[in-house]
Amino acid sequence: MFKKYNVIVVGAGHAGCEAAAAAANLGSSVLLITMNMGTIAQMSCNPAMGGVAKGQIVREVDAMGGYSGIITDKTSIQFRMLNQSKGPAMWSPRAQSDRMRFAEEWRLALEKTPNVDFWQDMVSSLLVKGNTVYGVRTSIGVEIEADAVVLTNGTFLNGIIHIGEKRFGGGRTGEKAATGLTEQLTELRFEAGRMKTGTPPRVDGRSLNYSLMEEQWGDEVRGRFSYTNVEQIQEQRCCWITYTNSEVHETLKEGFEKSPMFTGRIKGLGPRYCPSIEDKINRFAERERHQIFVEPEGLNTVEIYVNGFSTSLPEDVQYRALTKIPGFGNAKMFRPGYAIEYDYFPPTQLNLTLETKLISNLFFAGQINGTTGYEEAASQGFIAGINAHQKVHDKHELIMKRSESYIGVLIDDLVTKGTEEPYRMFTSRAEHRLLLRQDNADIRLSPIGHELGLISDERLAKVNDKIKNSDAIVAYTKNKSIGQSAVNGLLEELGTSTISQNVKLFNLLSRPQVSFNDLKKADSDLAELLSKYDIETIEQAEIKIKYESYFDKELEIVEKMKRMEDRSINPDFNYNQLVSVSKEAREKLMKIKPRTLGQASRISGVSPSDISVLMVHLTR
Amino acid sequence: MFKKYNVIVVGAGHAGCEAAAAAANLGSSVLLITMNMGTIAQMSCNPAMGGVAKGQIVREVDAMGGYSGIITDKTSIQFRMLNQSKGPAMWSPRAQSDRMRFAEEWRLALEKTPNVDFWQDMVSSLLVKGNTVYGVRTSIGVEIEADAVVLTNGTFLNGIIHIGEKRFGGGRTGEKAATGLTEQLTELRFEAGRMKTGTPPRVDGRSLNYSLMEEQWGDEVRGRFSYTNVEQIQEQRCCWITYTNSEVHETLKEGFEKSPMFTGRIKGLGPRYCPSIEDKINRFAERERHQIFVEPEGLNTVEIYVNGFSTSLPEDVQYRALTKIPGFGNAKMFRPGYAIEYDYFPPTQLNLTLETKLISNLFFAGQINGTTGYEEAASQGFIAGINAHQKVHDKHELIMKRSESYIGVLIDDLVTKGTEEPYRMFTSRAEHRLLLRQDNADIRLSPIGHELGLISDERLAKVNDKIKNSDAIVAYTKNKSIGQSAVNGLLEELGTSTISQNVKLFNLLSRPQVSFNDLKKADSDLAELLSKYDIETIEQAEIKIKYESYFDKELEIVEKMKRMEDRSINPDFNYNQLVSVSKEAREKLMKIKPRTLGQASRISGVSPSDISVLMVHLTR
Repeated sequence: MFKKYNVIVVGAGHAGCEAAAAAANLGSSVLLITMNMGTIAQMSCNPAMGGVAKGQIVREVDAMGGYSGIITDKTSIQFRMLNQSKGPAMWSPRAQSDRMRFAEEWRLALEKTPNVDFWQDMVSSLLVKGNTVYGVRTSIGVEIEADAVVLTNGTFLNGIIHIGEKRFGGGRTGEKAATGLTEQLTELRFEAGRMKTGTPPRVDGRSLNYSLMEEQWGDEVRGRFSYTNVEQIQEQRCCWITYTNSEVHETLKEGFEKSPMFTGRIKGLGPRYCPSIEDKINRFAERERHQIFVEPEGLNTVEIYVNGFSTSLPEDVQYRALTKIPGFGNAKMFRPGYAIEYDYFPPTQLNLTLETKLISNLFFAGQINGTTGYEEAASQGFIAGINAHQKVHDKHELIMKRSESYIGVLIDDLVTKGTEEPYRMFTSRAEHRLLLRQDNADIRLSPIGHELGLISDERLAKVNDKIKNSDAIVAYTKNKSIGQSAVNGLLEELGTSTISQNVKLFNLLSRPQVSFNDLKKADSDLAELLSKYDIETIEQAEIKIKYESYFDKELEIVEKMKRMEDRSINPDFNYNQLVSVSKEAREKLMKIKPRTLGQASRISGVSPSDISVLMVHLTR
Repeated sequence: MFKKYNVIVVGAGHAGCEAAAAAANLGSSVLLITMNMGTIAQMSCNPAMGGVAKGQIVREVDAMGGYSGIITDKTSIQFRMLNQSKGPAMWSPRAQSDRMRFAEEWRLALEKTPNVDFWQDMVSSLLVKGNTVYGVRTSIGVEIEADAVVLTNGTFLNGIIHIGEKRFGGGRTGEKAATGLTEQLTELRFEAGRMKTGTPPRVDGRSLNYSLMEEQWGDEVRGRFSYTNVEQIQEQRCCWITYTNSEVHETLKEGFEKSPMFTGRIKGLGPRYCPSIEDKINRFAERERHQIFVEPEGLNTVEIYVNGFSTSLPEDVQYRALTKIPGFGNAKMFRPGYAIEYDYFPPTQLNLTLETKLISNLFFAGQINGTTGYEEAASQGFIAGINAHQKVHDKHELIMKRSESYIGVLIDDLVTKGTEEPYRMFTSRAEHRLLLRQDNADIRLSPIGHELGLISDERLAKVNDKIKNSDAIVAYTKNKSIGQSAVNGLLEELGTSTISQNVKLFNLLSRPQVSFNDLKKADSDLAELLSKYDIETIEQAEIKIKYESYFDKELEIVEKMKRMEDRSINPDFNYNQLVSVSKEAREKLMKIKPRTLGQASRISGVSPSDISVLMVHLTR
């Protein structure tokens, strides 16, 4: 009934969709199995992509040939570049999506990918022979063979939904949980854990009083996630900001004794940086208010997502507290918030390719690895899909470096350190974040995508043009001088000191107050030069000029670390022979089996002196 | 947390959506409760509306102010008027819909209805006091009060899905079943039964060879369901026709021993006129082939619906048989077909308003009443929604007559005769079908919709114009004569006998071969007159001219029957006093409590002589 596939992807959320698309675009025959073909690429939580550090991840996936950026651009109804007042390393794109359109566009994109087949069913177990997976068995009893399997089960594995003291099985509200897989994986000696996450109530936008909230519109010049130029929805929507208050908090507290969080009914740990409202009130008792971000669910629907109000308190408490938020006095709920507990597998059981250590050709991506967030999931799916393809075609592994991408940081953190609570990306997690910017993801990663075969020659040529042209602009500013009379008026206007002799444009542009847009008013040759290039090229040149010295320093550090980082370690290396290394460190090293000295150095419990011993041993 | 509503509607399929919209548009505050807000107005079966007798129902709902016709027009990707070679009573509109768009447009339409609120949850029981319902309780324990409740649970009540020997709970594949309600209703002394229906596999359109099938495009001049002029999708799609063969049948038979239909695992009766493919092969063993109608699921998706191949055989048998159908040699399945068993309540437990006899203010509509079909469900929901509103506002009941609508035939059949297998509408069920045409649904029913308040003055004026103008056209043709020289050439061309003296246009038009379109070539005054009117008005005039004599006869019969039909019977009438009526008839009459003598006459087991006795008694 089924041919043998190269890759089976289980689950069609952000991770599963990227995995399927990547493997298929590389040439693998792919079967995407989902419990419901009507819910492919659902945004289970809020209708938005990106944000700080997360937006960078989406850009990275796009730069290498993934789809998340394209789908987001096609369906966005608001776009903002966050942190524009800070340095470019902090600039982070974020978009509101039309939830229905987002899911639809993903489905259509996958349908247009000739190597992707679909099957609606629940995978209940893996087909395993020895230590290698060779397919899946489904709930209706079908066996389907494949060279590799990627599991992206999200919150569905033994999912239990909690609302106050009520609880019931489910993978999302209104959808069934998935059973069987955890039990089998545990028998195969995988360690499993339990996590929880939550979602806020959805409300009827017709029942809100927006005049009591602050409007938040997108950027006037609308940005993009994708380095390709896909067609966008023209109509845009605003969001609103409002705040909780002490009355809201007091009302919520009335439900605490029935809270599954506080009564101990929920065992799994929730996301520290995306806590429920009851958690926020409990942990930050001194805070008088918390921000509520009111997001439209789409262009046409009246449904509203109450970001910041995730809760598993009893629905009547949710409701009463909600109605005490300014603007929500007459709020009508469409569905209550809830918490969901689900199984995950501590990601130290994975290689940096996202293949499991215990079972060959079995890959995990997304929440099953203990992460939270669409972007974290999408990027893992993308890498797992690539590596599944590469493995079954005897091609080289793709291991992303911490110094070249947030994706590298994410996977290295997961595999090396593991995580006991839902892992979310932050810029602070990336030691080289100055280099890992949203503006240069294409420069950093398109060559990798091109080498794999996911980025076309044309796209790579465009990236190379961007590099060449921005360098040409920088070179021009280093050569071209400007005199007092031409520029001093402008400099005064911009509130920066005037010059008393001719100065290179480069030096003026290094000042934070002076931009290309300003300076071209004073230099018509510059204006003419810039008119030849697109915004992204000019922006790239400007960033180079303003931050070059910082970047150079950072690159030096990277180079130094690279020497250590890249010293590889044989996966079969016997750490027990290192008698002068602490027992704890030896145990951890045996468990994690780091691939490089750099990875070894980041394992918690492995000290710098342990690393020195190891380094000496490796150089023998 | 919830205000008290006028009407709670449980379920958001075709019935629930129409019920909610109708009650809300009449002025009731309505809460629509659905298990999943993402699946409002799903077309669970094929992506099409209308067809023989069913298309007439959609037109009727539209003529009275329902939404099904409008939503269908907005989302149709092919339109055909079936049976155009037959008389106008048989003309039946049918449209392919884009499945995703259809659901989305319904949801948006409901969101735009200010009186409709939404709640995502499962209703697990009714709140009942004495013999009156006053609200619902949900699975998360919320109690919501209302003056009336409309149940439209579709196939969800204790739904069990069968595929070969496997079975699992579910309301549709991938969705949970609903539990609790049947048990409570049975305790309240409702009689419950079990029915089954089924659906075919869905396949990947990219894997089909369309060159081996017949194309079927829509009409060149595209019709509409709605009498309003909503904006339509311009792009259209074709369907394809192919056939099973003996090889397909032989393959299917290999699965018969594992068929839940034949092994007795499925207890419920399936729809006789929409049987599974195994049922067709079994019952019509002499037929060498069965038609398969290949329907696109939407404008953009590659998913294909294999109409005519509904099956609950094991998925591998489905697959093997499918691949033996011409064009399906390389077919890839997206999901297997399945059968579903669900609870229904024999509809003799209802009044003609669709209110239950046992519990006041409780209404049932759709598959819960033992019907099959979107159109049957939508029309019941519409009538139930209206009557729920009317009841709680102390307004008159709406009882549709058999002589004025298919909806009247449907409800009268259900309530009077009951049904033991899924009930589907046919033109043959309507004794006055000559009058119940798709072309005059507006003339028949818009006054009722207007009187209720669902049809605007403008819309009614438009209907009255259509009547007036078509009458004027008819009158003109009765007055205007034409001579031999002007028309004989044309008549010869049309293959009908020439005339030898002046003849009224009316008489020529009465000939089946001669249409307005022909005759206006010969009479420029006629051409000028017709240019003033729209297609529907001209069509109405043409139908009147060609079929007037038949219609007149039919109307006479209706008048005669009306006298009997309309003789009302007090619902508390004690039939036991009619000693000369048979015991069986007395029992049935006590059970059904017919509202009119006409209804009484259609109860099986009640003979004409019983009716005579009753009539004598009533005239005393």
